[in-house]
Amino acid sequence: MILNPDQLAEVAAARAETSPTRRATVPALDAILHEPLPVLGEGFVRVVDYMGDDPAIVQAARVSYGKGTKHVRGDKGLIDYLMRHKHTSPFEMCEIKLHVKLPIFVARQWIRHRTASVNEVSARYSVLEDGVYRPDPADLAAQAATNRQGRGEPLDPATAEAVLARLDGGAARAEADYRWLLGEGEGGVGLSREIARMTLPLSTWTQWYWKTDLHNLLHFVRLRGDPHAQLEIRAYAERLLEVVRLWVPLASAAFEAHRMESVELSRDAFSVLRRMLAGEAVTEASSGLGGREWRELMAQLGRDGG
Amino acid sequence: MILNPDQLAEVAAARAETSPTRRATVPALDAILHEPLPVLGEGFVRVVDYMGDDPAIVQAARVSYGKGTKHVRGDKGLIDYLMRHKHTSPFEMCEIKLHVKLPIFVARQWIRHRTASVNEVSARYSVLEDGVYRPDPADLAAQAATNRQGRGEPLDPATAEAVLARLDGGAARAEADYRWLLGEGEGGVGLSREIARMTLPLSTWTQWYWKTDLHNLLHFVRLRGDPHAQLEIRAYAERLLEVVRLWVPLASAAFEAHRMESVELSRDAFSVLRRMLAGEAVTEASSGLGGREWRELMAQLGRDGG
Amino acid sequence: MILNPDQLAEVAAARAETSPTRRATVPALDAILHEPLPVLGEGFVRVVDYMGDDPAIVQAARVSYGKGTKHVRGDKGLIDYLMRHKHTSPFEMCEIKLHVKLPIFVARQWIRHRTASVNEVSARYSVLEDGVYRPDPADLAAQAATNRQGRGEPLDPATAEAVLARLDGGAARAEADYRWLLGEGEGGVGLSREIARMTLPLSTWTQWYWKTDLHNLLHFVRLRGDPHAQLEIRAYAERLLEVVRLWVPLASAAFEAHRMESVELSRDAFSVLRRMLAGEAVTEASSGLGGREWRELMAQLGRDGG
Amino acid sequence: MILNPDQLAEVAAARAETSPTRRATVPALDAILHEPLPVLGEGFVRVVDYMGDDPAIVQAARVSYGKGTKHVRGDKGLIDYLMRHKHTSPFEMCEIKLHVKLPIFVARQWIRHRTASVNEVSARYSVLEDGVYRPDPADLAAQAATNRQGRGEPLDPATAEAVLARLDGGAARAEADYRWLLGEGEGGVGLSREIARMTLPLSTWTQWYWKTDLHNLLHFVRLRGDPHAQLEIRAYAERLLEVVRLWVPLASAAFEAHRMESVELSRDAFSVLRRMLAGEAVTEASSGLGGREWRELMAQLGRDGG
Repeated sequence: MILNPDQLAEVAAARAETSPTRRATVPALDAILHEPLPVLGEGFVRVVDYMGDDPAIVQAARVSYGKGTKHVRGDKGLIDYLMRHKHTSPFEMCEIKLHVKLPIFVARQWIRHRTASVNEVSARYSVLEDGVYRPDPADLAAQAATNRQGRGEPLDPATAEAVLARLDGGAARAEADYRWLLGEGEGGVGLSREIARMTLPLSTWTQWYWKTDLHNLLHFVRLRGDPHAQLEIRAYAERLLEVVRLWVPLASAAFEAHRMESVELSRDAFSVLRRMLAGEAVTEASSGLGGREWRELMAQLGRDGG
Repeated sequence: MILNPDQLAEVAAARAETSPTRRATVPALDAILHEPLPVLGEGFVRVVDYMGDDPAIVQAARVSYGKGTKHVRGDKGLIDYLMRHKHTSPFEMCEIKLHVKLPIFVARQWIRHRTASVNEVSARYSVLEDGVYRPDPADLAAQAATNRQGRGEPLDPATAEAVLARLDGGAARAEADYRWLLGEGEGGVGLSREIARMTLPLSTWTQWYWKTDLHNLLHFVRLRGDPHAQLEIRAYAERLLEVVRLWVPLASAAFEAHRMESVELSRDAFSVLRRMLAGEAVTEASSGLGGREWRELMAQLGRDGG
Repeated sequence: MILNPDQLAEVAAARAETSPTRRATVPALDAILHEPLPVLGEGFVRVVDYMGDDPAIVQAARVSYGKGTKHVRGDKGLIDYLMRHKHTSPFEMCEIKLHVKLPIFVARQWIRHRTASVNEVSARYSVLEDGVYRPDPADLAAQAATNRQGRGEPLDPATAEAVLARLDGGAARAEADYRWLLGEGEGGVGLSREIARMTLPLSTWTQWYWKTDLHNLLHFVRLRGDPHAQLEIRAYAERLLEVVRLWVPLASAAFEAHRMESVELSRDAFSVLRRMLAGEAVTEASSGLGGREWRELMAQLGRDGG
Repeated sequence: MILNPDQLAEVAAARAETSPTRRATVPALDAILHEPLPVLGEGFVRVVDYMGDDPAIVQAARVSYGKGTKHVRGDKGLIDYLMRHKHTSPFEMCEIKLHVKLPIFVARQWIRHRTASVNEVSARYSVLEDGVYRPDPADLAAQAATNRQGRGEPLDPATAEAVLARLDGGAARAEADYRWLLGEGEGGVGLSREIARMTLPLSTWTQWYWKTDLHNLLHFVRLRGDPHAQLEIRAYAERLLEVVRLWVPLASAAFEAHRMESVELSRDAFSVLRRMLAGEAVTEASSGLGGREWRELMAQLGRDGG
């Protein structure tokens, strides 16, 4: 259960209210406003508010009195051009505000994105009530062999079960300690919340309001949606990309083509490519690239590096 | 004339369009959306978009599922508390986007506020067509005698007229040079716009889209609406304070009471005050304050410093 | 033990190396460079590098070719003036880089200061080896009765001992779980580090390099050194204030007098003060202040509010 | 003449002073410390202070107790890896402070880089005394025909001379107006400096202290050193790249290979490349790229686009 009945009622009330406005409005995003979009089981992303749309990007780039260009086609061309040439400031002119429920270890990665505004629930002020994130057994994997950070082979089902049991046991004991320290039950001590919370695990659910602009949101999606990012934060990045597609379809398409799925080649890697195009059979030895960069280039080209 | 007929038509078209939305909406601000609010004669501020309202500040501070508190009175108390104790992050949760027409020398002061997004018209890309800011004769004043920066006595009308004539003459010649360099008229050379513009004076009108959050907007209003700020940027700060009053009346009232018109006393100045309240006749000599700070304190207390 | 022998040797080697430089140098800060200054038992702050000194603040404020003013007295007066009038940009011209060891729940408060650069040890990449923060028994206190956040009465010694035992037990079990998940000992599963770490408690020690400018450092010290801040982060803020005193004694003194120990009075509170100075016996009822603000004002004046 | 005798003496005095320090020191950068490096004739960049070196980047990335890796080779490999994979935070751990003399129209482009600290001379407080930037005749060019922004063909010498005469004339008249308004000479009115300055042209020299970190400095160099940037700011970017090469040679080399001279290909452009490598004769029509992107790709490949 993602929301309790009180929360469901509050969300429903927020969704029920509609006002007329002269502001740029995106019906597809308005349609899902306030609704929790599930992530990681009991976590969620809720779009609470937004400002701007695709034409607003064009409007800012042109410092115009009216909206966008005269034609969607003109907007598309300009947005594509801005994205390709990294004219990023017009993308800052759209803003979004989210309510997110996420595990603390994900929050610690997320907060590294500094160009954003944040209000998080305070464990000094309130008792944390939402328990912990519990991974899906299929997401449990061994340490990667070839990579200092990241997951390798999935665990076999029996081992995964044992791991989950251990995680569950730890979380249950931490919860019991927390409650005891706070003074619940018999003999509890009524310890200050700000101290008691330090016994909680990093998997504990937290919540925040997070507001950022489209440029910084896309930067977040690119970094945290990357295959090298941890699976748990990637799940949020993927949800956010879906939100962006609803919100600003032109900017989103340009972003996916020119940023998310682009390839940046170093001066030397690009020179290797040009030699290849000229018909030369370049090898690792003749490429002048370091071994690591050579292998990355071969992977990008879908070759085996041999 | 602030807007030409094409611009008027574009603004009218933008104002004519209304959409339903589930977002927080402020009818009083919506009512003036897109309209140019005049500043410095031909300059203006236009609110192009906004996000959030008073309850949105409360909602973020509480990381809540619904809107604000249940009662306006509760919202007011919490907003006041947040402002008084400088819990600034919930005020970042409201955002505003403005279209501003302003002289370049004002733009150079304004841009020092870094936590904002900006798109300015490019004099590399376009010919600047709006001419220059022309001060009101009543605003022309001699250099302040007691203050290295700032204005002193107003000029007498005849001198003011002479100054305006000189300013007008300089602006007209600069405009003629600019046009000639750009290749207008006979014998013009078609110089690159990016070079030609360097002959324009700092009084030249420019325009930008500027987007910031409420916290940073209030900071701007406090610094640039201060009596020590230059009259020209103060005119914009005052317009923006009027906008804020329409937008978030509770936050605006709290800001005016606790920030804009507050008094910050140093440790030593406050200690002087406490001695005075205890009945001591503190003098500059016995105060322990530097002469400058003593005079500032006497001014704040409405005393003559003697 | 704060550092292990290898770390001690690395620090000693860094301290042993001296180079001549034309840069502004502060011997008092150089004297403690690289040394861990203990905080919270096994935590620390180490100054790793710094840029600028008191005269550098003056130099930037004057955009001068040489250093500071001609006289220390001139520097002191200008720095005091800049601080009193919140001309903050010259204070941004000094920079400091710290290596900090701190509990994760403190790191989560600290990271909210966005204008800074951070490199933290990665629990995806490395196994966390430093264990957990263990509070001093004297710092264990009950939840404050009058304050939703913060500590009230200290626990009696027997209860404090019971709490510490519980905290220790929880930490030991979490550590054992973590090691087992990572595959240490018999039957360990070799789970990916990035998942295993989520079982660790918020009291776990982490480390980071943190770099910021003097203005933002002072802002940190003011907010986190405040009596309302949590004791654990306050311990870091106090250490940092000691560092600032060594580094920029003039700026530090101005900061303490005009920011850290200053009193900001709202428009209405200041008006109450002026009425009192004029001899009026203002009461809560006649003050026009809310109850909360009235009590705060009485506390600042050292009165009982009656 | 870039510096007057007083300024030369101040710089010489600053250069004459040397202190021992335990901080990371770069002799090659120390060697030019405080010296004005000429840009655009009478403009300059002076390195006033710096923090960090190549090993400091490694040290932060590893959150280590000592310096860098054990070997320069290890530092080089890691710095290259960080740059290639855009792990930007360790590059933020180096900081530099510059004194820059530059024309106002360049300052207006420069200030758009927000992650920096700035102190500029105030034309409210001081009379601007340095006159205006005067372009080299060889740098005068016609408006580009194929590009809305930027320069095309150089002017022929006679036209260039006429343009310079016009620029000189305008600057001289503006200077005379400014002096008259300030009250110099007979009949001057003593107008407030903050108003008088608005008659000055955008070519007027200004000065500032500007401080930023290495990551943001490299970003500046990449954007402003790009062939599409205006020649005048490019001149500063090129000087800054020379400074970076002295300061952090490993980071500088990695930056030039992986950022400055890299090529970013969109998803679709890269797919075209792969088809070409597989032997297909891809044409504009069969490429699926827009005309503009196709031509850009052909230019990057050194082909004529036919």
